[in-house]
Amino acid sequence: MIGTGDRVLLVGEGREFFVKAGPGTLSTDKGQLDLASLIGASAGDVLTTHNGSKFAVRIPRPTDFFTYGKRSGAPMLPKDIGLVIAYTGMNHNDDVLDAGTGSGIAAIYFGGVAKSVKTYEVRPEFSALAQKNITDAKLGNVEAIAADFLAAEGLYDVVHLDMQIQPEHVTHAYSLLRSGGYLACYTPFLEQMAIVVDAASGLFCEVHPHELIEREMTRSKRGTRPSTSVCHSGYVTIARK
Amino acid sequence: MIGTGDRVLLVGEGREFFVKAGPGTLSTDKGQLDLASLIGASAGDVLTTHNGSKFAVRIPRPTDFFTYGKRSGAPMLPKDIGLVIAYTGMNHNDDVLDAGTGSGIAAIYFGGVAKSVKTYEVRPEFSALAQKNITDAKLGNVEAIAADFLAAEGLYDVVHLDMQIQPEHVTHAYSLLRSGGYLACYTPFLEQMAIVVDAASGLFCEVHPHELIEREMTRSKRGTRPSTSVCHSGYVTIARK
Amino acid sequence: MIGTGDRVLLVGEGREFFVKAGPGTLSTDKGQLDLASLIGASAGDVLTTHNGSKFAVRIPRPTDFFTYGKRSGAPMLPKDIGLVIAYTGMNHNDDVLDAGTGSGIAAIYFGGVAKSVKTYEVRPEFSALAQKNITDAKLGNVEAIAADFLAAEGLYDVVHLDMQIQPEHVTHAYSLLRSGGYLACYTPFLEQMAIVVDAASGLFCEVHPHELIEREMTRSKRGTRPSTSVCHSGYVTIARK
Amino acid sequence: MIGTGDRVLLVGEGREFFVKAGPGTLSTDKGQLDLASLIGASAGDVLTTHNGSKFAVRIPRPTDFFTYGKRSGAPMLPKDIGLVIAYTGMNHNDDVLDAGTGSGIAAIYFGGVAKSVKTYEVRPEFSALAQKNITDAKLGNVEAIAADFLAAEGLYDVVHLDMQIQPEHVTHAYSLLRSGGYLACYTPFLEQMAIVVDAASGLFCEVHPHELIEREMTRSKRGTRPSTSVCHSGYVTIARK
Repeated sequence: MIGTGDRVLLVGEGREFFVKAGPGTLSTDKGQLDLASLIGASAGDVLTTHNGSKFAVRIPRPTDFFTYGKRSGAPMLPKDIGLVIAYTGMNHNDDVLDAGTGSGIAAIYFGGVAKSVKTYEVRPEFSALAQKNITDAKLGNVEAIAADFLAAEGLYDVVHLDMQIQPEHVTHAYSLLRSGGYLACYTPFLEQMAIVVDAASGLFCEVHPHELIEREMTRSKRGTRPSTSVCHSGYVTIARK
Repeated sequence: MIGTGDRVLLVGEGREFFVKAGPGTLSTDKGQLDLASLIGASAGDVLTTHNGSKFAVRIPRPTDFFTYGKRSGAPMLPKDIGLVIAYTGMNHNDDVLDAGTGSGIAAIYFGGVAKSVKTYEVRPEFSALAQKNITDAKLGNVEAIAADFLAAEGLYDVVHLDMQIQPEHVTHAYSLLRSGGYLACYTPFLEQMAIVVDAASGLFCEVHPHELIEREMTRSKRGTRPSTSVCHSGYVTIARK
Repeated sequence: MIGTGDRVLLVGEGREFFVKAGPGTLSTDKGQLDLASLIGASAGDVLTTHNGSKFAVRIPRPTDFFTYGKRSGAPMLPKDIGLVIAYTGMNHNDDVLDAGTGSGIAAIYFGGVAKSVKTYEVRPEFSALAQKNITDAKLGNVEAIAADFLAAEGLYDVVHLDMQIQPEHVTHAYSLLRSGGYLACYTPFLEQMAIVVDAASGLFCEVHPHELIEREMTRSKRGTRPSTSVCHSGYVTIARK
Repeated sequence: MIGTGDRVLLVGEGREFFVKAGPGTLSTDKGQLDLASLIGASAGDVLTTHNGSKFAVRIPRPTDFFTYGKRSGAPMLPKDIGLVIAYTGMNHNDDVLDAGTGSGIAAIYFGGVAKSVKTYEVRPEFSALAQKNITDAKLGNVEAIAADFLAAEGLYDVVHLDMQIQPEHVTHAYSLLRSGGYLACYTPFLEQMAIVVDAASGLFCEVHPHELIEREMTRSKRGTRPSTSVCHSGYVTIARK
């Protein structure tokens, strides 16, 4: 049941609105809606604006936070987040350390999967913004920490790094991992991928750099073909301790 | 703490063994190990064979079940499973329906992420084999059901189909989804992808067929280049209700 | 030596102009140039505008006709034209039949390679425009014919089709080819590729549909990575008689 | 008309034989053929073995030299050769300098397109083997030179390099090119591509590194899909003077 301050997605009339339940009014070209009326509502309920337009209530999913969350820069793409989850086998038993929080989108995805997530970000204003997104996502198991990754302690099943990578980050990640745990490093550039591979080889028992090229297919009356916009965003190196 | 019948990964001396704790002996070229000695052990413990070789104890992760689980055919690749998890935003609040269980690998990945998973498989012998893998993975929230997907009832946040797809499967998936929930269809062939897209368009509010091309990069003294073996396995169509 | 009416590329001051030698004046923000002064000039000569800017004379290459030629629609991309040349082994001994002339760009590339090229285009206005481009390229061995490909006769080493393909086009191409000769069909959509493959299989001794994904790499101070705009344009099926 | 010593392709009975017209006998599981009987024959003629099997006579094309030519190492793939031809606009007016002859396959393709080709190879035994392939291809306009590329002189429309590249090779190529001419460098590794791009930028007026990923599509009763073997071979950088 939706409480005061909860994020809600209102969907209808070909539109979507990402709002907060509580005081205030949503004004749209399809009419106005009192946001306090969301309190106590549930997913699937339908609300009506003052002029009769109908909007369905949705509890936002991680995909919605990718679309509507506040951003401090270009976040990792879901395709690459999915690769990290799948290639590390991230699951509800895992303690995850994420560094280079950015907008917190990866941490939100991981928080929906893992037992606990600590996410380090050295820039306090980025960490604060990410904390807002995490709070909006109602993830009590995710903690945003405004500190350098090299200061992180503890033991983790998965360490995920999305930052200006240096060899000492790879070495520190190794020291934080349980036996059998995984390091996943996202690097936009080839030179950074090489730093990760060179630092991890010899230390970790398996090291695999990956590139994901994603294409959306298009299908019209004329036929089926790949979209001309193709999606490469970076390299993801997976290393197992 | 490891109990009788639990799956354990023993790693050491450049070898890995996927064993079951309890009566019996593991015989390797590095010596013998009494598997009953695993009972009561924990992840990270080190056991010694009769001739002094050392093996570390690991609790298997989903990635290990992809490698060592019993197979009834070619399973979906982790890269495609990751895309399903990321593009549906699958998380610990979700009820997931999976159909076309196969060896149960996708269900094991989903079971580590979601609140509950029901996985339908029309071939009883496949469903029974998948159930063994699921039991090995100690996932109490995953239920293997030997029945036709069209017989499935209930309400779900994500429906995932990996089967000989027909338009009625897409329509039935729609009826099983909560508002804002996602259908994800894996199809190896373009003609099947077209069936999904055509059946979902108009019914679902967003329909996006994707192709993932994954390349492993190789790095040696001679330099860095993509591996010549590139990995395409099929198309994943994501549709949102 | 450049004669009246010859196409010339003037390059300098960070600009390029595709002009015709003869009467007239080129007016640019870098000054004016009498185009009659090009007559008798040679590649590499440098001309000076009335206010002292310098432009080098170039004889246009096929790549320039791709950039500056008149267009009646989207032409085949050079990457796909190159694949046709390489996979058919097109060379100076070859008689080539091209159909679906379009703007004539493929015919201009082929004319620079083969002994003779006949290019069929059923729309007379397209054929006339292509003929202008071909004349500009000074290719005496290329003939633009405003007629249906099915009316073509003779014997050829290579038949290249870029048109709304039907099975009878594939069959007719077979009848026009010398033993050991090649059919190359460019098709933007998968459904058309399937028509070609199905019609050619059994008839031709080898049938190979190809897709070319081209990426430009980018390199800056930040590092090296693939461009995010990736180039797929269609499928090229190569069949050998 | 085929003369003594000419290369001939005999095709029939599901087999292909790459032979030399003149003294000798071809022995196959489909019978024997006197190779002197090829002298005076023409493309398309059909010869009969002593036991009645029929083989058609073909004059080999560049594609056949790629398949049957003698090799001193892995040659450039036709897809990349095609990209060089198309992106340089190579044509019958061009003087081409090729360096890193290898087996001479690229030089044979270029020789079928350009007015003249000089191909430099520093290893004399490689150059001699390439000369045999070139002679077999009856290309009087291609000259194999056993010398270092840095010793090359003259003026060319296209310079193509496939060798252990160093910045001085790029600089020397620039000095050998006519205005408007193209350098094309094939490099298997990213580090070599970076050397080319860095040396060419500032010197040439356009510099574009490309990667070609080629996929063969497969089509069976089960459906259409990309082949799992995908073809990347290296990077081709195109720079224009």
